[in-house]
Amino acid sequence: MRDETIVERPAEQTTLTRRYTEEAIQMIESSRSDPRPFFLYLAHNMPHVPLFTSDDFAGHSARGLYGDVIEEIDWSVGAVLDSLRDVGIAERTLVVFTSDNGPWLVMRHHGGDAGPLRNGKGTTWEGGMRVPGVVWWPNTIQPAVSHEIVSTLDLLPTFAALAGADRIEDRPIDGFDLSPFLRGEGANPRRTLFYYRGEELFAVRDGRYKVHYRTASAFGIPDGEPTPGPQLYDLQVDPGERFDISADHPEVLERMSAIVARHKETMTFGKNQLARSRPP
Amino acid sequence: MRDETIVERPAEQTTLTRRYTEEAIQMIESSRSDPRPFFLYLAHNMPHVPLFTSDDFAGHSARGLYGDVIEEIDWSVGAVLDSLRDVGIAERTLVVFTSDNGPWLVMRHHGGDAGPLRNGKGTTWEGGMRVPGVVWWPNTIQPAVSHEIVSTLDLLPTFAALAGADRIEDRPIDGFDLSPFLRGEGANPRRTLFYYRGEELFAVRDGRYKVHYRTASAFGIPDGEPTPGPQLYDLQVDPGERFDISADHPEVLERMSAIVARHKETMTFGKNQLARSRPP
Repeated sequence: MRDETIVERPAEQTTLTRRYTEEAIQMIESSRSDPRPFFLYLAHNMPHVPLFTSDDFAGHSARGLYGDVIEEIDWSVGAVLDSLRDVGIAERTLVVFTSDNGPWLVMRHHGGDAGPLRNGKGTTWEGGMRVPGVVWWPNTIQPAVSHEIVSTLDLLPTFAALAGADRIEDRPIDGFDLSPFLRGEGANPRRTLFYYRGEELFAVRDGRYKVHYRTASAFGIPDGEPTPGPQLYDLQVDPGERFDISADHPEVLERMSAIVARHKETMTFGKNQLARSRPP
Repeated sequence: MRDETIVERPAEQTTLTRRYTEEAIQMIESSRSDPRPFFLYLAHNMPHVPLFTSDDFAGHSARGLYGDVIEEIDWSVGAVLDSLRDVGIAERTLVVFTSDNGPWLVMRHHGGDAGPLRNGKGTTWEGGMRVPGVVWWPNTIQPAVSHEIVSTLDLLPTFAALAGADRIEDRPIDGFDLSPFLRGEGANPRRTLFYYRGEELFAVRDGRYKVHYRTASAFGIPDGEPTPGPQLYDLQVDPGERFDISADHPEVLERMSAIVARHKETMTFGKNQLARSRPP
């Protein structure tokens, strides 16, 4: 679709990554004649199944088709960054690279891989919820690897602050403005994460610790025996969530309960947008 | 022990990594006055449980005690390489860094982590058998990352060839001389690996493929349901051994059977050295 118009049906998916990239670069190029700030959201279809790649990348990766698709996305990211440099706006552009969820495990070798993280998409294990997070802003963000917690929930307040927008006051906002942290001028404002499935709070993270109040496998992927009480993991030592330490750290569970109680006092749910999108 | 003499009992384990390193460096330093070639086997106790670290490394790693221990071994490796450079023999010394098996999973966060590889010590899954393999020989071995298969079985023939020893003819040798491959002057002579448990062949690897004829969990670590027939994995696409492709590739299973038949024709078992070491 281009805006609201269907321009191709069925879509030729082998060229989608390339064509999305070309469109993005065209938008960046328009900055040469139009110096206003812009927001570009480049959401590749790939590597969601069904997987497709252009001829240039077909059969290129030892990992097979999934690897070819990732290599083409990697090319795309490079082409976008090159374009920002060419146009001369790299040093006043924040680029964020991230993903929507972990691997869709029932798709096997076409579904991705969470490496050492447990389980995948559809679960509140780290393999389902933790995603790549790369930020790039030459001369403003210093190159570093960070183990801090941030969330896509933080993108709206961060972008709004950087664009000089007024503070959002007309509704509760769950995100934090990360811009002082990204610039190296302040601490990370986020310490907790709440892991929901629908409107049910399954898990909470506070710093290095994560407590699961409930776990569920997704799409029929088995994942050990369910345990009766809450499970506690130290993600700093055990990012794979292998070793439940709840019996050793009742004081952490207690602190978590207090965090949950405070959270629930202020939490109001929005309308379910998935339900809204279904026909009546 | 020093040679056959007990010099300390119980051993002060917190200083073992440092003391082994100092002994190794002393041996390297003796090359200043004695130019003969030498063989140094530095087998750290750590990170085998029980874990100990010197004060310099205690509490240093975010990963906890296990991370502290790894950081001290990392320091040790650096100190050994520095010593070879200081003495001026780095360019005529081959250094091999490897390990004996994968993580001992029942030791939980003290037992290590195989990352994306399946299971651990005591099994013929990759998490039990695949170990780090780093070789260093400045100006002779070119810096690179390789996905080729080699084995600790290859170290004896490789070292013997490099030392100019006669070819070993008085017994069957399962290893290959890797020295032309390491120098970049020849192909890797190893294409297959045979995974034994005792005298039973559990699995075989040939190039990218690995077939399991039998699997068994070790030390009570559960690992899915046992399957009746052989399991086949493509380690190039699926190093985590998640997706059994035996039904799709009967021709690979057939080729593997022929490899096993040829192997069994020539295989003779040595005496069980574990059994020999037990008191009568």
